[in-house]
Amino acid sequence: MKNTIGNVLTLTLFGESHGEMIGVVIDGLPSGFHIDRNNLEWEMEKRKAAGSISTARHEADKPMIVSGLLNDVTEGTPLTILIANQNTRSQDYEKTADLARPGHADYTAHVRYHGFQDVRGGGHFSGRLTAPLVAAGAIMKQMLLAKNIRVGTHISMLHGIKDTSFTQNDLEETLDQLNQEMFAVIDPLIGERMKQEIEEAREKKDSVGGILETAVTGLEAGIGEPEFDSLESRISHAVFSIPAVKGIEFGSGFAFADMYGSQANDSFAMVNDQIETLTNHNGGINGGISNGMPILFRTVIKPTPSIAQTQKTVDFIKKENSSITIQGRHDPAIIHRARVVVDAMTAFTLCDMLAEHHGTQWLGEKL
Amino acid sequence: MKNTIGNVLTLTLFGESHGEMIGVVIDGLPSGFHIDRNNLEWEMEKRKAAGSISTARHEADKPMIVSGLLNDVTEGTPLTILIANQNTRSQDYEKTADLARPGHADYTAHVRYHGFQDVRGGGHFSGRLTAPLVAAGAIMKQMLLAKNIRVGTHISMLHGIKDTSFTQNDLEETLDQLNQEMFAVIDPLIGERMKQEIEEAREKKDSVGGILETAVTGLEAGIGEPEFDSLESRISHAVFSIPAVKGIEFGSGFAFADMYGSQANDSFAMVNDQIETLTNHNGGINGGISNGMPILFRTVIKPTPSIAQTQKTVDFIKKENSSITIQGRHDPAIIHRARVVVDAMTAFTLCDMLAEHHGTQWLGEKL
Amino acid sequence: MKNTIGNVLTLTLFGESHGEMIGVVIDGLPSGFHIDRNNLEWEMEKRKAAGSISTARHEADKPMIVSGLLNDVTEGTPLTILIANQNTRSQDYEKTADLARPGHADYTAHVRYHGFQDVRGGGHFSGRLTAPLVAAGAIMKQMLLAKNIRVGTHISMLHGIKDTSFTQNDLEETLDQLNQEMFAVIDPLIGERMKQEIEEAREKKDSVGGILETAVTGLEAGIGEPEFDSLESRISHAVFSIPAVKGIEFGSGFAFADMYGSQANDSFAMVNDQIETLTNHNGGINGGISNGMPILFRTVIKPTPSIAQTQKTVDFIKKENSSITIQGRHDPAIIHRARVVVDAMTAFTLCDMLAEHHGTQWLGEKL
Amino acid sequence: MKNTIGNVLTLTLFGESHGEMIGVVIDGLPSGFHIDRNNLEWEMEKRKAAGSISTARHEADKPMIVSGLLNDVTEGTPLTILIANQNTRSQDYEKTADLARPGHADYTAHVRYHGFQDVRGGGHFSGRLTAPLVAAGAIMKQMLLAKNIRVGTHISMLHGIKDTSFTQNDLEETLDQLNQEMFAVIDPLIGERMKQEIEEAREKKDSVGGILETAVTGLEAGIGEPEFDSLESRISHAVFSIPAVKGIEFGSGFAFADMYGSQANDSFAMVNDQIETLTNHNGGINGGISNGMPILFRTVIKPTPSIAQTQKTVDFIKKENSSITIQGRHDPAIIHRARVVVDAMTAFTLCDMLAEHHGTQWLGEKL
Repeated sequence: MKNTIGNVLTLTLFGESHGEMIGVVIDGLPSGFHIDRNNLEWEMEKRKAAGSISTARHEADKPMIVSGLLNDVTEGTPLTILIANQNTRSQDYEKTADLARPGHADYTAHVRYHGFQDVRGGGHFSGRLTAPLVAAGAIMKQMLLAKNIRVGTHISMLHGIKDTSFTQNDLEETLDQLNQEMFAVIDPLIGERMKQEIEEAREKKDSVGGILETAVTGLEAGIGEPEFDSLESRISHAVFSIPAVKGIEFGSGFAFADMYGSQANDSFAMVNDQIETLTNHNGGINGGISNGMPILFRTVIKPTPSIAQTQKTVDFIKKENSSITIQGRHDPAIIHRARVVVDAMTAFTLCDMLAEHHGTQWLGEKL
Repeated sequence: MKNTIGNVLTLTLFGESHGEMIGVVIDGLPSGFHIDRNNLEWEMEKRKAAGSISTARHEADKPMIVSGLLNDVTEGTPLTILIANQNTRSQDYEKTADLARPGHADYTAHVRYHGFQDVRGGGHFSGRLTAPLVAAGAIMKQMLLAKNIRVGTHISMLHGIKDTSFTQNDLEETLDQLNQEMFAVIDPLIGERMKQEIEEAREKKDSVGGILETAVTGLEAGIGEPEFDSLESRISHAVFSIPAVKGIEFGSGFAFADMYGSQANDSFAMVNDQIETLTNHNGGINGGISNGMPILFRTVIKPTPSIAQTQKTVDFIKKENSSITIQGRHDPAIIHRARVVVDAMTAFTLCDMLAEHHGTQWLGEKL
Repeated sequence: MKNTIGNVLTLTLFGESHGEMIGVVIDGLPSGFHIDRNNLEWEMEKRKAAGSISTARHEADKPMIVSGLLNDVTEGTPLTILIANQNTRSQDYEKTADLARPGHADYTAHVRYHGFQDVRGGGHFSGRLTAPLVAAGAIMKQMLLAKNIRVGTHISMLHGIKDTSFTQNDLEETLDQLNQEMFAVIDPLIGERMKQEIEEAREKKDSVGGILETAVTGLEAGIGEPEFDSLESRISHAVFSIPAVKGIEFGSGFAFADMYGSQANDSFAMVNDQIETLTNHNGGINGGISNGMPILFRTVIKPTPSIAQTQKTVDFIKKENSSITIQGRHDPAIIHRARVVVDAMTAFTLCDMLAEHHGTQWLGEKL
Repeated sequence: MKNTIGNVLTLTLFGESHGEMIGVVIDGLPSGFHIDRNNLEWEMEKRKAAGSISTARHEADKPMIVSGLLNDVTEGTPLTILIANQNTRSQDYEKTADLARPGHADYTAHVRYHGFQDVRGGGHFSGRLTAPLVAAGAIMKQMLLAKNIRVGTHISMLHGIKDTSFTQNDLEETLDQLNQEMFAVIDPLIGERMKQEIEEAREKKDSVGGILETAVTGLEAGIGEPEFDSLESRISHAVFSIPAVKGIEFGSGFAFADMYGSQANDSFAMVNDQIETLTNHNGGINGGISNGMPILFRTVIKPTPSIAQTQKTVDFIKKENSSITIQGRHDPAIIHRARVVVDAMTAFTLCDMLAEHHGTQWLGEKL
């Protein structure tokens, strides 16, 4: 199905950037789970990431939950989150509606929807659609944390500037810390350099991308399926749903191409009476199934395609060469905002797979 | 669902390495498509890739089609392909059944299936399960070629040794050539060095991995969906179903992390009255939907985990440290065999998405 | 999935009777279909069926379409319909929240949702949830009519009072006429007797049920699948989604039990150069697939379980015998309102199956 | 999906009557469940129901399990059952291949599959396809019985001859008894009259149908979902997958049309400290969810369409009137064979819904 994801737990996403509302229906939730509204709003804040390094379009983005929740406790019926679109400036898009913005979905959406799509603000393809996903993800992260499962992401690299990597020690504390930060890096000095780089990109009327590194701790061994529903298959499917993601690698990822098997294999050993691996090149996944070690993966976010420079393009109605100078309010980088969307889609996927394994109601139970 | 993939066209995969049979049910096929048996067997040959650089286990791997096909023409009903397991040497696995082979699914399968899984030869997790996938993929590639859509893959890198990249010119001819080759490289001299590297790895009782680069030509613009069913989501889901795949990147992929938006954006231009892009950093996909340019992606294959060296591990029944020296017949590299599996899963995904778009029966019609 | 129905065209239903909003997300629509708002409101009116024979709860039931529609033309993206709950009198339900109303879902919902369900007005189980279904169905009926496919239903029997049956001649005209009527009978005199019977049931503090007969004309032969996705399987699945439906029969239905095969078989014959059947005992379906004749089925609607008489029941929290006198505003019959819901679910099922067969975009094209 | 049914537990059905093999893949099974092979063969025997009142085509119908089972214990991976077609007499079908047998799927399959379907013996539409379903159902019934859940069916009526109805008392014993019988009736004298009626139908070159009544005992309250996945929706979907089923009614079914609400409502009461209903007009289902009482439903089976009389029909290739005298080996009644198929599809549906509720692995555990 096109705009629904998940097996026993599902998200159905709807809305256009300049339409009346965007939103998501979450189905398959356990009943009886108490949602922390403050945390939900904090996750939304992290996605907004207001300031000079982000878009000037400011939306309240207050999620209205209109079904499935009674006194902040899930009923088990579909939970619907609505977000109103308020600060729309549709006139920015009118005169360039037929010009394909390079790197954007304007032309492909035109072909896919036969010219009937809403072009204003990118329509259904807008990054705004990630707001309901973050709201849903906040609920998923809360359910996981109640099981002592943590999901967190940092900006591993921004336009060549590298952050410190995750270390096995203190990984849980690192994730907790990252989840408190508006700009998610492990080394705050690196973070300042990254922000400066974003600022410089804006001054050049340009934009930058980077790499996000995500870790999951506390996931039990045995979650995942052989072949088609491997953890890698399911996580990648969910993460590639996020606009601007163009690559994903688990564990050592592309570095495997230079390794010998004797280097790449993670030896098993008894550690404190638990089966663990001594290294984690496989990112916590063997044969598509979790092995109890932290899940580790990296995601590349391409530079924001909306830039203030004039670009060559075509008018896809007149079928002739043209050029475009994009008006509107845009981000010189979205990676610092995208990180919480990666968290959300990861948390959703794990909740869905845990519910498949243990049954839906288990998901709502505290440890 | 666990062992079924696809929306309107589906594959259901079954079997264990040392069980009686492995196979696949393909549902949602158009009726009236004539299957080329010779081509089907050739695809199977490429996966077997017999010789000193591959496993010594030789299986006829003759696909028996027991339903859905009449006089080599699809009926439109489920087409079932069976492959018998003949050359099994289960005794190789008996004495080490409780030892987790590093990098393999032994331990995770034990947890997932509560100890009831078939451990012989990796059971349901064996690379043998890719044989029915290749058989299914052969049919998919034939249906695509009838629409002038080509899918092909070469070994872009093997343990540090790099092949020439795809070039825009002559891409169709390159793909046709690769599909004729048993060892898929663009530069045959590089291919010889790669084979030598594999041979040396075997002598070291070790194994090597690498990177596969895949291209699709002839795919119309407008295929794919926003967000959850983006082309990247669907292709990555299918490709991560293949054992040993640990990363995927589309177009410029992880290189986007060092680029400016002005470099990363592909400008549109009219070329011979067609809308094309002047570069193809986005790998033929904008906003999750094909833009008519070649689809390009790269997949990393980790080194084969089965190596002849003694490795540290645990006995997961006794829960104690141990070591293992893997017996049996194994490959010092599988990347040259995996490439046709990547083709298969890619071709399957495109057929499924084309059938969603145009209806199932369209898929069986010649251009 | 629990609250989503459909394969390539899907409905996701949400909301509780006394929650803030109820609604539906329709996904998989073609782009470019112009929706007739007047007809949509007329379908909603027929479901409300205001008057003394219906509930005194009056809701505006004005469907707000907040996504997927631009200037009344479908965009092809998810179309979301919201309906506000306004005239709620939740206090009616407070004092009896733990008493299982006989024939209702109070007790079963309590067990299913572990006591966290919204009990007010039946919560997610309320007949109000059929309002968004009718809104969705109105769009489906419009798309079908653009293909010359008609769906219509009349009250074939109400508490023993029988309406005239459909006749092959003039069936299209009959369906058009029924779709204009608020109280759907073929013989208006019978309709008056039925209304009187409903009125008398109300005076007795009781309720009545009946049988709906549905016909579909203009459906091409060849729609449906063998076994699991037979037309009967798909229609019955959808129709049993409607509260109070407890049986369905296609064509001669239960009367087949007294017939010989020689009577039951519908002979084929050439009629005006078309293949038709001389009788239609099979209700237009052979082997799960449409044969081009009208689709005919009958659905039984049980008497409304909410009656004003005091009834024996249990307190399912205290686990003791009790009795209940249901307050609130209820219908002595719902069959005259249910008929348009049966139309809706039938039209949805046919649109989904036609889209599977011809592709989604075909569905939006006029003949 | 066309030939797959189920959510977390799935059946994928394949094969043609005169093809090489028919079979089914069962996915989503728990690991560790020991299958009783004798019981499996007994279920197959009941479907064959050899003798003068059944077809003269005799097939060994020995199910070969080629994957997912090790020493008769489920592995948790897809379990594949194959059944060879041996006693085929394809020449019976050759000369009448273009004539639509009345009441059969010949014409509709021709349209659906564009003339490429296998017409021999009804192809994919043959009643033979129910053999793998019964094999799968046998496993499902075994898993249910390990939970003290019984499924059983009797011939409630055959061509006007009525069997005794189920009674609340001794229902479990009755179901156990029925499951031991080859010809399933409660009153054996009635059974003799029914067999005689079938024999007489054969002599008249005709056939008869009837009504099956099915009961399920031991199902806990709380299984099912509101609206789209109601127990009635799911059971009816599965049961209408069986060829010749043309109607289904739950509890009082069509008799509700003559009842008052005060008669139709089942009062709740405490019985031995359990919540029960004093009557069971609703067939154990309120609001789509089980209430702990026995599930009761009735299914109508139309008379076998294959009769030895000459019938009017058309040649659908030449598009002209014709007549057909069906050769081949056919049943004057199939209802006594169909009953175990109804059991199978019911047991499958309950296992799927229980697995959704409790998780897959729960399904394999003994009480």
